[in-house]
Amino acid sequence: MFFLLDCDGVIWTGDHVFEGVPETLELLRSRGKKVVFVTNNSTKSREEYLKKFTTLGIPSNVEEIFGSAYSSAIYISRILELPAPKNKVFVLGEAGIENELRSENIPFIGGTDPALRRDMTPEDWKGLADGSLLDPDVGCVLAGLDFHINYLKLAHALQYLRRGAVFLATNIDSTFPMNHNFFPGAGSVGAMPLAFMTGTQPLALGKPSQAMLDAIEGKFQLDRARTCMVGDRLNTDIKFGVEGKLGGTLAVLTGVSKRADWEARDAVAVPAFYVDKLSDLGAVAL
Amino acid sequence: MFFLLDCDGVIWTGDHVFEGVPETLELLRSRGKKVVFVTNNSTKSREEYLKKFTTLGIPSNVEEIFGSAYSSAIYISRILELPAPKNKVFVLGEAGIENELRSENIPFIGGTDPALRRDMTPEDWKGLADGSLLDPDVGCVLAGLDFHINYLKLAHALQYLRRGAVFLATNIDSTFPMNHNFFPGAGSVGAMPLAFMTGTQPLALGKPSQAMLDAIEGKFQLDRARTCMVGDRLNTDIKFGVEGKLGGTLAVLTGVSKRADWEARDAVAVPAFYVDKLSDLGAVAL
Repeated sequence: MFFLLDCDGVIWTGDHVFEGVPETLELLRSRGKKVVFVTNNSTKSREEYLKKFTTLGIPSNVEEIFGSAYSSAIYISRILELPAPKNKVFVLGEAGIENELRSENIPFIGGTDPALRRDMTPEDWKGLADGSLLDPDVGCVLAGLDFHINYLKLAHALQYLRRGAVFLATNIDSTFPMNHNFFPGAGSVGAMPLAFMTGTQPLALGKPSQAMLDAIEGKFQLDRARTCMVGDRLNTDIKFGVEGKLGGTLAVLTGVSKRADWEARDAVAVPAFYVDKLSDLGAVAL
Repeated sequence: MFFLLDCDGVIWTGDHVFEGVPETLELLRSRGKKVVFVTNNSTKSREEYLKKFTTLGIPSNVEEIFGSAYSSAIYISRILELPAPKNKVFVLGEAGIENELRSENIPFIGGTDPALRRDMTPEDWKGLADGSLLDPDVGCVLAGLDFHINYLKLAHALQYLRRGAVFLATNIDSTFPMNHNFFPGAGSVGAMPLAFMTGTQPLALGKPSQAMLDAIEGKFQLDRARTCMVGDRLNTDIKFGVEGKLGGTLAVLTGVSKRADWEARDAVAVPAFYVDKLSDLGAVAL
């Protein structure tokens, strides 16, 4: 049996691990359950996530971690399979995306390139408009969470999309939680602005997109009927599990969504079960 | 009789004035028609627009120019009338907006402030989340075209909106034309990202928003039945005139929209008349 676990709001909030979580994860493993951490945060690669797990005292390994940056890289290399030479990816995002693209040997530009972290120049207006500043080998735009978003990068991405590049997003979260508040999410800084400019929607590779579940199923050969998605957000985690026809969905109340959210008549998704906190699972017969 | 004229795609494209336009404007004025230039571009104030008109050899004066930055300033000072001290405006945009806000004595922060043109710091994540870095007097967020958009500014705007600031946009154009191509517009860099983050739509003060037409009507005391809107875009200019129940709408074919656009069954708006170019008006009995 598989447990797919969201991280933020389930395992931790920021750098604070919820009480009893490491013990609960060990209990699951000792009972022969397979644990996979499924996160939409694209700013970290799996290796970087592993460091965070280790620092916070939670035993894990890279094979247990499945982030939207990795999900995107897998999709590009194994499903999209753009023919060379027009197989380069223009990235809006941070190092986590770049690391995952590298791990799949996908050529890319943009991302954390310091050459793009600057104001527009008269040469940019001209060269972007006539295409002379564009890389003819770009066949895909991948929009993730970019803390260094600027006009120059958006203008590049727009031109590549206008020239026919495939439009992908690591995820389209409107915000993400931090320090008990919310900050602009991946969907808000890149994916939705580009969708508005071009009139087309990206294929999102994070929850609740079923493309992510397909990738997880492909990698772990899991049996959906014997898989449970655990998360704190109805519109990402629980929707992901319900639409994926998983055997179970389990909401925890340590994050964003509350009981009233799924008891509402227009609830975006309703979990099969809920617990106040993940460690309550220890008291349930597994 | 009033002629409301869009600029880009009607009078000029970039710095190129269409043939015969200065003469046509003089002809209109000599026949006693009142001319008003109505533009969504918020990066220039009326004074800056006047400089462009003068440089391009088109006689005009500040009173003939009505841009979305001016429209926004008028709305804030004369209709919104936020009570002091919570009447400060947080601006996403360039100097044109700031100049128009100053002309109406509206206090503002943000805009071209160099202190906001930088990366996020650990202090920003903390101080934005707990509010200690926010100005308690901000009662309004005004989103325009900001060529220096960044994560720090979007995060500020999001926090002000979450604290109840009124959400305004100079305009919500998805793109704007430049050098025979398109670049990210005001709606794409600020207004729509913030709308996606907050789940609320801004009140837009540019075409086709009727708030702009109300402001023009108030200023010029025009008779709508004896007013004609001239423009190149169906979804801004022509829609603006049709929804405002103006006496006439006139499309020109020197810009974005083509005949096929309004002949389509799902046309967003249909002009009452069209000419190939503005100077063709000279051949029409006025």
